Amino acid sequence: MLKVSILTVGDEILIGQIVNSNASWISQKCIETGASIIEHRTVGDVEEEIIQAVYDLQKKSDIVLITGGLGPTIDDLTKPSLTKYFNDELVFDEQVFEWIKDFFFKRGQTEISERNKNLAYVPRSCKPLKNEFGTAPGMLFEQDGKIIVSMPGVPKEMQFIMNQYVLPLIKDKITKENCLTNHYCVLQTCGIPESVIADKLIGIDKEFSDVKIAFLPSYKGVRLRLQTENLPLSIACERIDQIKNVLYKRIGDYIYGEGEISLSEVIGKMLIDRNETVAVAESCTGGLLGSEFTKISGSSKYFIGGIISYSNDVKINTLGVNKNTIDKFGAVSEETAIEMAKNVRILLNTTYGLSITGVAGPTGGTPNKPVGTVWIGFSSPTTTFAKRYQFGGDREINRERSVYSALTLLYFQLKGLSI
Amino acid sequence: MLKVSILTVGDEILIGQIVNSNASWISQKCIETGASIIEHRTVGDVEEEIIQAVYDLQKKSDIVLITGGLGPTIDDLTKPSLTKYFNDELVFDEQVFEWIKDFFFKRGQTEISERNKNLAYVPRSCKPLKNEFGTAPGMLFEQDGKIIVSMPGVPKEMQFIMNQYVLPLIKDKITKENCLTNHYCVLQTCGIPESVIADKLIGIDKEFSDVKIAFLPSYKGVRLRLQTENLPLSIACERIDQIKNVLYKRIGDYIYGEGEISLSEVIGKMLIDRNETVAVAESCTGGLLGSEFTKISGSSKYFIGGIISYSNDVKINTLGVNKNTIDKFGAVSEETAIEMAKNVRILLNTTYGLSITGVAGPTGGTPNKPVGTVWIGFSSPTTTFAKRYQFGGDREINRERSVYSALTLLYFQLKGLSI
Repeated sequence: MLKVSILTVGDEILIGQIVNSNASWISQKCIETGASIIEHRTVGDVEEEIIQAVYDLQKKSDIVLITGGLGPTIDDLTKPSLTKYFNDELVFDEQVFEWIKDFFFKRGQTEISERNKNLAYVPRSCKPLKNEFGTAPGMLFEQDGKIIVSMPGVPKEMQFIMNQYVLPLIKDKITKENCLTNHYCVLQTCGIPESVIADKLIGIDKEFSDVKIAFLPSYKGVRLRLQTENLPLSIACERIDQIKNVLYKRIGDYIYGEGEISLSEVIGKMLIDRNETVAVAESCTGGLLGSEFTKISGSSKYFIGGIISYSNDVKINTLGVNKNTIDKFGAVSEETAIEMAKNVRILLNTTYGLSITGVAGPTGGTPNKPVGTVWIGFSSPTTTFAKRYQFGGDREINRERSVYSALTLLYFQLKGLSI
Repeated sequence: MLKVSILTVGDEILIGQIVNSNASWISQKCIETGASIIEHRTVGDVEEEIIQAVYDLQKKSDIVLITGGLGPTIDDLTKPSLTKYFNDELVFDEQVFEWIKDFFFKRGQTEISERNKNLAYVPRSCKPLKNEFGTAPGMLFEQDGKIIVSMPGVPKEMQFIMNQYVLPLIKDKITKENCLTNHYCVLQTCGIPESVIADKLIGIDKEFSDVKIAFLPSYKGVRLRLQTENLPLSIACERIDQIKNVLYKRIGDYIYGEGEISLSEVIGKMLIDRNETVAVAESCTGGLLGSEFTKISGSSKYFIGGIISYSNDVKINTLGVNKNTIDKFGAVSEETAIEMAKNVRILLNTTYGLSITGVAGPTGGTPNKPVGTVWIGFSSPTTTFAKRYQFGGDREINRERSVYSALTLLYFQLKGLSI
């Protein structure tokens, strides 16, 4: 097993001003590459704390990845701390200075301030790593067969150095040393509850006693994490492929993707292949469904637009919902959802129309339509219907679940399956 | 200084499947209460790792807060690890069993499974803490004047135990022991660049040499973090109040709120006070601006709806933008943004109309309108105009910046200030 630990340096993380998304990004990438993550640690911008943490983590890991504390201000203490830790000294590195000058020249600046010039001083024993998206270089140290890499805290800069230098190095080490790995793969499902998946997978644990299956339910659907432990990477990949084949046979209809792909991206590809389009009519989600579609670059090929009909006036005057429908059945009703979906499809001249109308909460609930009641409508040239959902009491979660339920409804229609 | 460290237990965090938002939530709350956070650590579900981490953190902190690993499955190792760490034994606690039964009874279940009954076994030396939102109780230990609290990893359950037991305990300790604190306060600004704020604050560091001002720029605006170090809480609060007064005098026009309030919430309150309404016409943001308005509970009082005019057809046919305008000036232009804002205001019969049209990227840029070019339009009964913004190359960031720039534009108009 190649053991990796992650050290994050910075007061912003420590005081909770920023969530530590760098640690989860690095973890995911290292694990995909075949390494194991044994610890995350965050300390503030304090020299002794940084040195103690590097010491602790180096003892127990093969690779220590450090982010943060590399900027040009006096608050940034990772470089001096590492210089001290390795009993080293800072030297001016001509190559690093070229990188820094190049970075500024490309942005039209020809003068390099003293402060930025200082970034070209690095510990003598390190190998500097080029940072294409910023000025502070990464630094790679080797000591007693252990590797320590220091990277900037800006996600884009850290990710560049990880992709360019660190992940290839990890892959190389794992292959050369034939390391055992804990290997993971994630399958994304939608439209099927955890308990039904469990029923459909009965017996699989006997055939695959060396693969753990974890169920990770969320409002986006249930993610299945398949995991092997302590196997060489090639055998781990083979076992994961075998169990994946069985899973696709048993619950393939519900698996929309692997890894980090989103349902809206999968739907987008299907719509492009079929040369079809979609429009949305949103009430309680207020634009969140349209926003989810248009996150995807190239979505203009199939996402045409929508009506945010938050008030009843907009539902009636702009979207053309019959005033009697709303008066008789209410804005949150099967009938209104159906008219919304159908009318937006016709108004915007698309293949499909999707609508959402519900009580997001925390106020506005009634005994018949408590907070969390949501109707989602679907309309195509051949069929129009709406489905009722009952979510919980949290406004933001209800909105998110509404969006993912609408996407799931569309996905199943596109696959020709009932939900 | 009351030193708090946070230990997160769980493979999901360690392998990057979940971002550690518990750590940042706990940090924020502890700091607001007057404590200092000295370390975040995350380890996997491994007994020796948990024990070693508790040992390390207890040595350097007054309070160790642990989340995760308290569920009923064999993967959950925090309770056995703590039992071992404190040389303790598990005993059946009648009161905890009452809590668990009560939890299930309220949800209509009358049978308590063996697995759930096991949750009533707790280490003899701990004080169990009631968990209103789940079945696993919190556990509080005291040893050598140090406090260790173990809480479930589910955010809602952890937050309940923090609010109910841990934060009052921290407050009490700080008051009784008259601890020195590092105190923070955050002011939120919009519509003013970091460098201009810096110019306007020249000299303030002399008057307030005991207060650090950190600039935290993001696409939502610049946040100012005011921080005192090593002062008793009462004096710290007083100094923060004093510097806040000066800041309001110098840059008050740009400060829209304190702490975690959002700009859309502030705008919502202003619109309610003025009995005014707003509608949106969105192109490249695809509904994200409407979604930001409707995040706020009660937004139906002022947010009426909008048109997501992603395609030119919707701009022309639904929103009534003149086809000649688009043909002559393009969809991303001052003229189109103006017609979008004005037309949506009239169509939806609101006081204000806001529009966004731009090149979100990564494709679609031209020499005259590179990726990141965005026009934002504003229309009221008395004035209509549009403003050009030039953002960068990242699609998601361009969309977010467009939304916050539109909100900022509206905010300044409501305040009667030019931007």
